[in-house]
Amino acid sequence: MKKYIGIDLGGTNVRVAKVTAAGEILAEIKSPSYAQDGPSKVMENLIRCIKEIEGHKDCAGIGVGVPGPVDTSKGEMLMATNLPGFVHFPLAKTLEDEFGIPTFVDNDANVAGLAEALVGAGKGLPIVYYVTHSTGIGGALIVDGKVVSGKHGHAGEIGNIIIDRARKKYNHLNVGAVENETSGTALIRIAREVIDENITSAGELFALAKAGEQQALDIVDTMAFDFAMMFSAIAHVCDPHAFIVGGGVMKSKDLYFEKMIDYYKQHVHTGMRTVEFKGAMLAEPGLIGAAMLPVSFGK
Amino acid sequence: MKKYIGIDLGGTNVRVAKVTAAGEILAEIKSPSYAQDGPSKVMENLIRCIKEIEGHKDCAGIGVGVPGPVDTSKGEMLMATNLPGFVHFPLAKTLEDEFGIPTFVDNDANVAGLAEALVGAGKGLPIVYYVTHSTGIGGALIVDGKVVSGKHGHAGEIGNIIIDRARKKYNHLNVGAVENETSGTALIRIAREVIDENITSAGELFALAKAGEQQALDIVDTMAFDFAMMFSAIAHVCDPHAFIVGGGVMKSKDLYFEKMIDYYKQHVHTGMRTVEFKGAMLAEPGLIGAAMLPVSFGK
Repeated sequence: MKKYIGIDLGGTNVRVAKVTAAGEILAEIKSPSYAQDGPSKVMENLIRCIKEIEGHKDCAGIGVGVPGPVDTSKGEMLMATNLPGFVHFPLAKTLEDEFGIPTFVDNDANVAGLAEALVGAGKGLPIVYYVTHSTGIGGALIVDGKVVSGKHGHAGEIGNIIIDRARKKYNHLNVGAVENETSGTALIRIAREVIDENITSAGELFALAKAGEQQALDIVDTMAFDFAMMFSAIAHVCDPHAFIVGGGVMKSKDLYFEKMIDYYKQHVHTGMRTVEFKGAMLAEPGLIGAAMLPVSFGK
Repeated sequence: MKKYIGIDLGGTNVRVAKVTAAGEILAEIKSPSYAQDGPSKVMENLIRCIKEIEGHKDCAGIGVGVPGPVDTSKGEMLMATNLPGFVHFPLAKTLEDEFGIPTFVDNDANVAGLAEALVGAGKGLPIVYYVTHSTGIGGALIVDGKVVSGKHGHAGEIGNIIIDRARKKYNHLNVGAVENETSGTALIRIAREVIDENITSAGELFALAKAGEQQALDIVDTMAFDFAMMFSAIAHVCDPHAFIVGGGVMKSKDLYFEKMIDYYKQHVHTGMRTVEFKGAMLAEPGLIGAAMLPVSFGK
């Protein structure tokens, strides 16, 4: 079976793995990424890590997941808040020149979605929409085993979808953006406003809801409705075979996921109600998905 | 150059054309579709029409556009209000058995979008989102020259996207569905409520706006804003290279299109503002797009 190098390049750490085409991790190395030292130091360290992987010369391609939008045709980042100097730095080309194998770059949400679509909860399905329900909300559209990254690398920036224009302005996102109303961060803000200003995590809110606290139940119910409005919008745009939902908030899925799906069904055409909603299943979608990038391009 | 049979099968008429791979119509036949007489009569007549096309035996494939969602993998309709008896009728298979060439079916919005993506305003662009602004609102997602039809054939049912939940319930669509607030039909309803109950067309409303009538200007401005919210939602889902907008309301585009694009830019991430908005350019997107279906599958 073919093997690939998957890289999860972040602002703090970089992880490099050798992964089979079936998504099995055979070897893994972790290192500081040296992001603050700039691209040449980051790349020098990254190349060293890859060379430490046993059998890296037998790999058929390299994939890199990065924190920000990517021009996937060039393999360059378009925004790089956590990787200074990487905007339009030739990330893919540098690795291709060093190792002589095809190299692809995409953002971390797209890469995680690709992993779930190819070897995770969406395996075998033609159209998968991956959603992360975490401190923020992101996503990825995968069609026929390939990420639809978009003109500006912004496909899947679904956290900015407006689910109710009659909300407050909080930040650079749209008024009523779903991320500002349903993310883990939003849940903490709302719980502090409504219940107790000392709440510091979404988990505390869910614990209160589980204990039957009415205000907490109401907040979770509103979140489930608001979140469903985003899924409804996505479904009318591309009618996926499955929504695959990952991210930390999903640890509390027992308290909102079924309810959210019910609200979804009330807000789509009758013929669209059989879409599958699945929890993400991979422990390492970032590493595996990076390795799946060359696979998705037929390498 | 390869040639194809394109068919626009409607509830009243059927049109059959011989079309080149470049989208040039070489011959065309029109006939009643005999929809009320059921599938066997419709197909008998359709087969006769195809046989009347000179050189139909030299064509490399057949494509059919139909009014309703399609299971494109089977070439069968899933809903067929205007073509009684056609739900799960083997439309593609019947033509394949008769003519021995690959046959594909998709709904009329998807087919029109495909035409614009392959040989119209979106030619050469990887991701195109086509939108019809007409009595209703529909759309189509085309990625790498192929329609993304969806699990239930409902991709592009964007008329049901909620742009403001604080509106009224009118029909089977969602409260605040963009079609109920911005389509030609909606504009007539709103103009009657606000200006004059004798208004019978969106054109009358646009004429009043052009003459500087303030209420008409306000209605058109609100429509432009509401319509932009739908484009914002679509862009965050799939970040297309271009939106291509067709349909009868676009005859009045001078009065709203630029304004709508401005509102769009205010409601997407900075990096997404360079998406192209283009008017549809083909006179016969339905016929040409049907003929492009086999092209899109590499036939």
